Amino acid sequence: MSAGPALQLVERMLEGDRVALARLMTLVENRSPELPEVMARIHPRAGAAQVIGITGPPGAGKSTLTDRMTARLRAAGKRVGIVAVDPSSPFSGGAVLGDRIRMQAHFLDPGVFIRSLASRGSRGGVARATRDVIRLMAAFGMDAILVETVGVGQTELDVMRLADTTIVVLVPEAGDAVQVMKAGLLEIADVFLVNKADREGAERLHAELVQMLQLRPPSAWTVPVLLTQAATDRGTDELMDALAKRQAWLAADEGRAERERARREQELIDVLEEEVARRVHRNLEAGASDGRAGLIEKVRAGTMDPYTAALTILDDAAAVDRLTRR
Amino acid sequence: MSAGPALQLVERMLEGDRVALARLMTLVENRSPELPEVMARIHPRAGAAQVIGITGPPGAGKSTLTDRMTARLRAAGKRVGIVAVDPSSPFSGGAVLGDRIRMQAHFLDPGVFIRSLASRGSRGGVARATRDVIRLMAAFGMDAILVETVGVGQTELDVMRLADTTIVVLVPEAGDAVQVMKAGLLEIADVFLVNKADREGAERLHAELVQMLQLRPPSAWTVPVLLTQAATDRGTDELMDALAKRQAWLAADEGRAERERARREQELIDVLEEEVARRVHRNLEAGASDGRAGLIEKVRAGTMDPYTAALTILDDAAAVDRLTRR
Repeated sequence: MSAGPALQLVERMLEGDRVALARLMTLVENRSPELPEVMARIHPRAGAAQVIGITGPPGAGKSTLTDRMTARLRAAGKRVGIVAVDPSSPFSGGAVLGDRIRMQAHFLDPGVFIRSLASRGSRGGVARATRDVIRLMAAFGMDAILVETVGVGQTELDVMRLADTTIVVLVPEAGDAVQVMKAGLLEIADVFLVNKADREGAERLHAELVQMLQLRPPSAWTVPVLLTQAATDRGTDELMDALAKRQAWLAADEGRAERERARREQELIDVLEEEVARRVHRNLEAGASDGRAGLIEKVRAGTMDPYTAALTILDDAAAVDRLTRR
Repeated sequence: MSAGPALQLVERMLEGDRVALARLMTLVENRSPELPEVMARIHPRAGAAQVIGITGPPGAGKSTLTDRMTARLRAAGKRVGIVAVDPSSPFSGGAVLGDRIRMQAHFLDPGVFIRSLASRGSRGGVARATRDVIRLMAAFGMDAILVETVGVGQTELDVMRLADTTIVVLVPEAGDAVQVMKAGLLEIADVFLVNKADREGAERLHAELVQMLQLRPPSAWTVPVLLTQAATDRGTDELMDALAKRQAWLAADEGRAERERARREQELIDVLEEEVARRVHRNLEAGASDGRAGLIEKVRAGTMDPYTAALTILDDAAAVDRLTRR
């Protein structure tokens, strides 16, 4: 019984090989066909890492904050994984800025592993890749995993759902609190930071956020609103205190088991959807020479609409079998 | 031969019934199972509307600009569709702010149809819903369709790919041009606007953008960078001139036919993926009483990982047939 190359990478990664970990992350980012086997093997080892999301508009100072938090976690002896989700150019397909450059203080620390994920690829692929990278990092033995997203779109909201705790970072010039609400950030924040708090408008934004939070339905977790200046490390200790409180609250929360059950079922549906879609895509692209080619050419030429073609294909059981084959 | 209720809505919509149009958009937003039939029927009628995307960070003044552009298009006798893609609360599942409120100048104009799309629902659902809403508006007879997105995440980039022309709106306080590049906006912009151009830093941002555009590979279309003040209508005429130039350029572009063929094939793959995923999801949720229930319960309880369960299900041809049934 010899394992495939991807599973060999898994064994090496579980023994502490960072290169193997990095290569597995590339498989994850490319949504490799070997992923289901890899993730099934990882699963028993991907335990109880604390996952902290950091999001907010561009330029809010999220990377500097991540850097500060990493320093504190390392000082406490924790191993830290960092996932920076970068929007990517639709043309170049790559991450534009290397967050690694800004994180160079930790780049050589063996207790830190940093990965940028470009948000290229199919829709939903970013959130899936982030979920699987988190799991790889947990299996590698990271105690805390910081997930940083740029921007406030749906992808970012999807990614933040993966976190136990979500920090929303704002700056005074990001606009008023109505914009925060509009961007869907109010409901996902477990901790609000007003960063660059020395700038004009910080106190006003702080007050607006506190007021808005009072309008939310009462919840067992009280969302703190903290003033920080990541550039000078001001407020980082208060942030770490808030995160520790949040962890204690999560551990004691009675609804957690039921939420975990629902989350696992949802993940099964998601994995099935992705795997079926992947097979359909690959088999469709490979299958242009068989009976479906006529339909596809009609769609290309614009003489048949894609919906009619799709329903015709899916009503043919033999075609469905060909499309969903491994 | 009696048509189903959804197809009856289509017939009424094609006769000019706005209520039917609105109800079809709700079907689109909810990704109704009847969609493939509806879109197949719409397809021959969804012709040559000009689709203009407007994106940029929150607070850049996109809605006011949309309002100004709508006024110009209406003055030129064009019928205008407006799609405002709102990020939504993951909790409430609805759009937070009604863009309709801010668009009240046009709300009663029968030549304008405004729709907010919340970005709730499954991943990728927003871009698909936007694509189909654009097609409904085109079939309804709109000459120009303005698609406004909040934020700069992957969803927004996906949505902007649907536009013939993408306007990226920035404001001086949005940070420097590096942030623009980081957010992936440089490559999607066909027109750059520096809005709120009376504010400090506008000239500098303008100069930075012009300089950055010179670093792009040469292209047949030259991206203009315009200074606007939507609040006082300054620069709107220049924007409309730029849009007219862009339309003329697109009409003369030789690569267009080939891009259309590729786009249509991609849409077929996308429609197939969505329909297969929808069937799998529905059949899986409905099928808890048959042989797969044991697997699902194991996943819920955490005793089997979702990947192993998914591969087991997909290796069973009879299970795949049950999962992909209409």
